[in-house]
Amino acid sequence: MKIAIAGYGNLGRGVEAAVTNANDMELVGIFTRRDPTTVTVATDTPVFAWNELGERAANIDVIVICGGSATDLPNQTPELARLTCVVDSFDTHANIPQHFANVDAVAKEAGTLGVISCGWDPGLFSLARLYASAALPNGADYTFWGRGVSQGHSDAIRRIPGVVDARQYTVPVEAAVEAARSGNNPELTTREKHTRECFVVAEEGADLAVIEQAIVTMPNYFADYDTTVTFISQEELDANHKGLPHGGTVIRSGHTGLNDEFADTVEFSLTLDSNPYFTGSVLASVARAAHRMHANGEVGARTMFDIPPALLSPLSAEELRAHLM
Amino acid sequence: MKIAIAGYGNLGRGVEAAVTNANDMELVGIFTRRDPTTVTVATDTPVFAWNELGERAANIDVIVICGGSATDLPNQTPELARLTCVVDSFDTHANIPQHFANVDAVAKEAGTLGVISCGWDPGLFSLARLYASAALPNGADYTFWGRGVSQGHSDAIRRIPGVVDARQYTVPVEAAVEAARSGNNPELTTREKHTRECFVVAEEGADLAVIEQAIVTMPNYFADYDTTVTFISQEELDANHKGLPHGGTVIRSGHTGLNDEFADTVEFSLTLDSNPYFTGSVLASVARAAHRMHANGEVGARTMFDIPPALLSPLSAEELRAHLM
Repeated sequence: MKIAIAGYGNLGRGVEAAVTNANDMELVGIFTRRDPTTVTVATDTPVFAWNELGERAANIDVIVICGGSATDLPNQTPELARLTCVVDSFDTHANIPQHFANVDAVAKEAGTLGVISCGWDPGLFSLARLYASAALPNGADYTFWGRGVSQGHSDAIRRIPGVVDARQYTVPVEAAVEAARSGNNPELTTREKHTRECFVVAEEGADLAVIEQAIVTMPNYFADYDTTVTFISQEELDANHKGLPHGGTVIRSGHTGLNDEFADTVEFSLTLDSNPYFTGSVLASVARAAHRMHANGEVGARTMFDIPPALLSPLSAEELRAHLM
Repeated sequence: MKIAIAGYGNLGRGVEAAVTNANDMELVGIFTRRDPTTVTVATDTPVFAWNELGERAANIDVIVICGGSATDLPNQTPELARLTCVVDSFDTHANIPQHFANVDAVAKEAGTLGVISCGWDPGLFSLARLYASAALPNGADYTFWGRGVSQGHSDAIRRIPGVVDARQYTVPVEAAVEAARSGNNPELTTREKHTRECFVVAEEGADLAVIEQAIVTMPNYFADYDTTVTFISQEELDANHKGLPHGGTVIRSGHTGLNDEFADTVEFSLTLDSNPYFTGSVLASVARAAHRMHANGEVGARTMFDIPPALLSPLSAEELRAHLM
């Protein structure tokens, strides 16, 4: 199957690696809004201008769209779903129903399939919540993120005057994870669940106390958390904080039995050296499923909730039953 | 939807509780091979003789078959798939392809749907292996079971002359779990992965050394494991070992990146107070999905690998996208 990538940042690189390493997929092009001659990619995949997508779409089975959720995907995914099947990683949870509706309308009209909000959260974590709640309808869900880099929070710090560079780690509070596992269905506040660790490079002569205050009081991003700020040199940041590790844990604890007499816990966790490369690998598997579902006549919008899991794998149904069941 | 249970042991009780507690399902009958007048069930569900299944099937959407894998399900599942949709928990992994083929042939002919090998292993653990291998194609899988009661191993001990009662716990070796998590893809032997703890009630005057030797040298069951045998009184067994707790962990560690430069770990685990009640709860959710898939025109055999996850949940697709994605 012929796969294209639209948007070449960290996530695009992750998809490029995953598709290149898959035997059943061919990466036929990387499309960029930049001047293609200025974009160096990791493989020998041809790079095209974004506006060539229309004329080249007939030769593409699935476009994996690697834009951001804030401003790119709300437009790009419906736009490209007019051309062929698409997969995205739209992760603004509150806007998923609207994005789904937008993609669904276009894809149904165009006869294509669009799978939105793929990756690990939303994505594999969503699936963990769904399977766990189907198996344990009487229970409570907890999602913990980290220890990992939040790019959105890092960007928010970089926008503060006097800040040169920054890296923010989201850190789950181990006591809260243990409480969630306990089966007592505790009510956990935002502050109890995660802390935020900020590593900041300041301009020479900047007032560090002012920067720290601007960070820890920032609404939505930091004010509701116990936040620590550590000022470091650019060299130290480059040496120790350039990676994009992430991960987290979904826990559902609940009860079975006619009168809730049995307590059970379901837990799913990820530990990732590279968030974008793992997410890209998930998107590649969804592209495979999207192509297969479309070949079966399905059109419209979908999420990973709608994908029969066998379709994600390069193995045949027989191989899966024989070896993974 | 109208659900029936065929076979009323521990698993049947688990399905009974789960279906009774689900708002969208009605438990219309429990079918037994025993004399129905001798069977007392936990709810006010009517109990029928097994041979009434044929005449009552028209009023049943899905039969959840709660027999054993060794001799019951290989016959029962194809037999009942002639009548209506069925779900089973067939767990003899090596025979799943043959069982699938048998059910598929009957169900296609009868226009029914049969979902086999549901529960947690096979079942949710199989799904964890599948999702993790799709996301991390370059990696290795590890499955650990326990700490939990193996009914098959407990039964094997009870068949030894001089044994009155027994309970066997399968226990994962923590060092092996840690090694699997490490990402170094260790080769782990059977002995390195699990130990077996046996609590045995012996007949008065029995030669305990002979019983212990018979256990620890038993081929397939114990010979390949570090097995400990503890003789206890019937009172102590009844007081401390009557439950059926179980659980376990599926771990996949692997690499992403064009040249495998990033190491990732995916982990799924269950901690269950009651193995049969949790398994019964999973089977109830699969019965829901089976009914929906059949209503969409699907016939033949399926496994949980083929079920779009949204179909397992009582929530609508819109609710799932809004709240669990």
